Amino acid sequence: MRITISRRAHFNAAHRLHNPNFSDEKNEAIFGKCNNANYHGHNYELEVRISGEINPETGYLLDLKELKDIIHDHIEEKFDHKNLNLDIEEFKDILPSTENLCILIHKILTSQLDKKYHISVKLWETARNAVEYPAIN
Amino acid sequence: MRITISRRAHFNAAHRLHNPNFSDEKNEAIFGKCNNANYHGHNYELEVRISGEINPETGYLLDLKELKDIIHDHIEEKFDHKNLNLDIEEFKDILPSTENLCILIHKILTSQLDKKYHISVKLWETARNAVEYPAIN
Amino acid sequence: MRITISRRAHFNAAHRLHNPNFSDEKNEAIFGKCNNANYHGHNYELEVRISGEINPETGYLLDLKELKDIIHDHIEEKFDHKNLNLDIEEFKDILPSTENLCILIHKILTSQLDKKYHISVKLWETARNAVEYPAIN
Amino acid sequence: MRITISRRAHFNAAHRLHNPNFSDEKNEAIFGKCNNANYHGHNYELEVRISGEINPETGYLLDLKELKDIIHDHIEEKFDHKNLNLDIEEFKDILPSTENLCILIHKILTSQLDKKYHISVKLWETARNAVEYPAIN
Amino acid sequence: MRITISRRAHFNAAHRLHNPNFSDEKNEAIFGKCNNANYHGHNYELEVRISGEINPETGYLLDLKELKDIIHDHIEEKFDHKNLNLDIEEFKDILPSTENLCILIHKILTSQLDKKYHISVKLWETARNAVEYPAIN
Amino acid sequence: MRITISRRAHFNAAHRLHNPNFSDEKNEAIFGKCNNANYHGHNYELEVRISGEINPETGYLLDLKELKDIIHDHIEEKFDHKNLNLDIEEFKDILPSTENLCILIHKILTSQLDKKYHISVKLWETARNAVEYPAIN
Repeated sequence: MRITISRRAHFNAAHRLHNPNFSDEKNEAIFGKCNNANYHGHNYELEVRISGEINPETGYLLDLKELKDIIHDHIEEKFDHKNLNLDIEEFKDILPSTENLCILIHKILTSQLDKKYHISVKLWETARNAVEYPAIN
Repeated sequence: MRITISRRAHFNAAHRLHNPNFSDEKNEAIFGKCNNANYHGHNYELEVRISGEINPETGYLLDLKELKDIIHDHIEEKFDHKNLNLDIEEFKDILPSTENLCILIHKILTSQLDKKYHISVKLWETARNAVEYPAIN
Repeated sequence: MRITISRRAHFNAAHRLHNPNFSDEKNEAIFGKCNNANYHGHNYELEVRISGEINPETGYLLDLKELKDIIHDHIEEKFDHKNLNLDIEEFKDILPSTENLCILIHKILTSQLDKKYHISVKLWETARNAVEYPAIN
Repeated sequence: MRITISRRAHFNAAHRLHNPNFSDEKNEAIFGKCNNANYHGHNYELEVRISGEINPETGYLLDLKELKDIIHDHIEEKFDHKNLNLDIEEFKDILPSTENLCILIHKILTSQLDKKYHISVKLWETARNAVEYPAIN
Repeated sequence: MRITISRRAHFNAAHRLHNPNFSDEKNEAIFGKCNNANYHGHNYELEVRISGEINPETGYLLDLKELKDIIHDHIEEKFDHKNLNLDIEEFKDILPSTENLCILIHKILTSQLDKKYHISVKLWETARNAVEYPAIN
Repeated sequence: MRITISRRAHFNAAHRLHNPNFSDEKNEAIFGKCNNANYHGHNYELEVRISGEINPETGYLLDLKELKDIIHDHIEEKFDHKNLNLDIEEFKDILPSTENLCILIHKILTSQLDKKYHISVKLWETARNAVEYPAIN
């Protein structure tokens, strides 16, 4: 019985989109208000989905408390109330766009969960904008 | 023209997670607060998605009133304001986890709808926890 | 500067509405499906609002972490994953309706917070039904 | 790095479901209240999802401002505060059901976006009813 | 024990804002897109709040099933899938703005409920726009 | 006919809570993660409510387009994608807590709207935390 479970979490962070290889004019043209040198921020809303087989003894795919703890320890503790550009090692050389943040969260969760699970991540930057990885099609 | 329609519904129920083959200690360790002998409960939120071809005469895949009535008669009437462990025949021998409840709802809807439709079910136990069947990947 | 802050929380519980002074027929007539002898349950959603003066040194009315902890320790720990009829002492003699639960939560919070604050509580039993105490007018 | 981004938008419109090839009785039987000759209306909520490769220089799949503008100019301006039956050329000969409206929106967006992207559209007619095109399976 | 209960409901309707005493230019200037001669529509979301004393025998202010039925019979049946300008007698001479619709709903509910209750109505025309009557201050 | 209308808006901003009169230890003890020197951020959600008399000629308390424009020009343009500590003059000497931000928004709107209206503001910093000014009681 292959099934998918999902768990939601959230965290708040500051960031700025700025490519040091671009001129100031190009950064402003491409990133607009997201280029503000003093940073801005978001309440990120996260949905993690895990697919696999149900354990008939527990009726669970995976204990949601275990998934909740992994998300808390490795995602919320890492990103909550942080500045993505300055406080997160992985964004020293890549842009902290929602796309790249979604892929980074997927990478972290993949390293923490058993390889038998298929993992997908949806990350909302605002109530209207979101990113999913892997792509849905 | 293959398309997917979805319909949301909800119901409230009590349940308890307890495997009679486990010791009390193991039940407590695995199910935690969900093992409370006096039951606890949830507002279950349901999204049913049906895929198939549009009928050009009506512009409908399926009349949503018909789907609404099937969900009302076979899901809401069966589960709403019930104790899943004590009132639902199908949970006499299997655990009423959200995973198993989602699969049972899928089975009931499959028996009520034309075989030409592809059916999937997403069931939220809380605003943060959900299950989908069949698995999304 | 008098202001109001609000904090949301939630918990899941089972309950049953049944007045032992009524006949079975009268209980069924008045409480309907809520009278199910095996209990049913809800995801209760709570909004606590506190009014008072801002502290100019912190910009806070009250540290929200402190309010979050009070709600966690005295409301969530007490009611979450419980059976309101069987597990909660205060409902031994009064009906665990949403109205009475809302008043009980208000009473507990009043005993935990400084008397200088004005407290109000809104409690949703479902997405469509809620209770507020004190009354809004 | 293939990824999916999504953007939400909304618009309000009136419509009526009526097939001129049906008798009045058949229209009433099939479309019920949706057949009201004086029209009724909805707040349509739209989620557009675009899949493709991330641009490493910007961290973007596609600039969301660009997507926001395309949705504004070609969807919101076209449908918002309109009567789908009377004001929209494409519904002169086909029924303005949510299914057909979802397919029309998909067709318009496909004509406005680069062919390298995969586009999918989910359209809510009410908080409980939605349509997705292409079908999810 | 004075308390407030609330109940949510919704309905879909078409309308148009047009004052026959104004010129076409003035109607267009004041009402903009809402003046479209072919109508547009909304999913109206309604919250009804009733204040009064709890009945100690039932733990209820008022049976929510009774309130649900009154809202269904006198509000949803009257307005759902209707054209407010053409189908609703009360809007023959007054503008079907959200403000006037909110006051009309309040008047209807007042006529259906016991005079001992205090009634207030909040009506959302969209997720962002709402009206409350009586005024909150 | 005195009535209340409300309008929702949102903006994203970075901030940091830090009182220069406190020691680093006291700032850390009082503001915790909100004291991060590199800032963090939020999606602020705003509800503005205006009370007054309906204009019988338009059925409006106030044209919502006008209110939408005032909120856009004086609130969204001022705060969206900004750093509250560094970019906002009014927070040079006071802490950019949600409480103080709510009061500042109320002050700005009061200066832009006719004195005959009563204005109140509710500002959510997260889905669970909000502030209202003036106090509700």
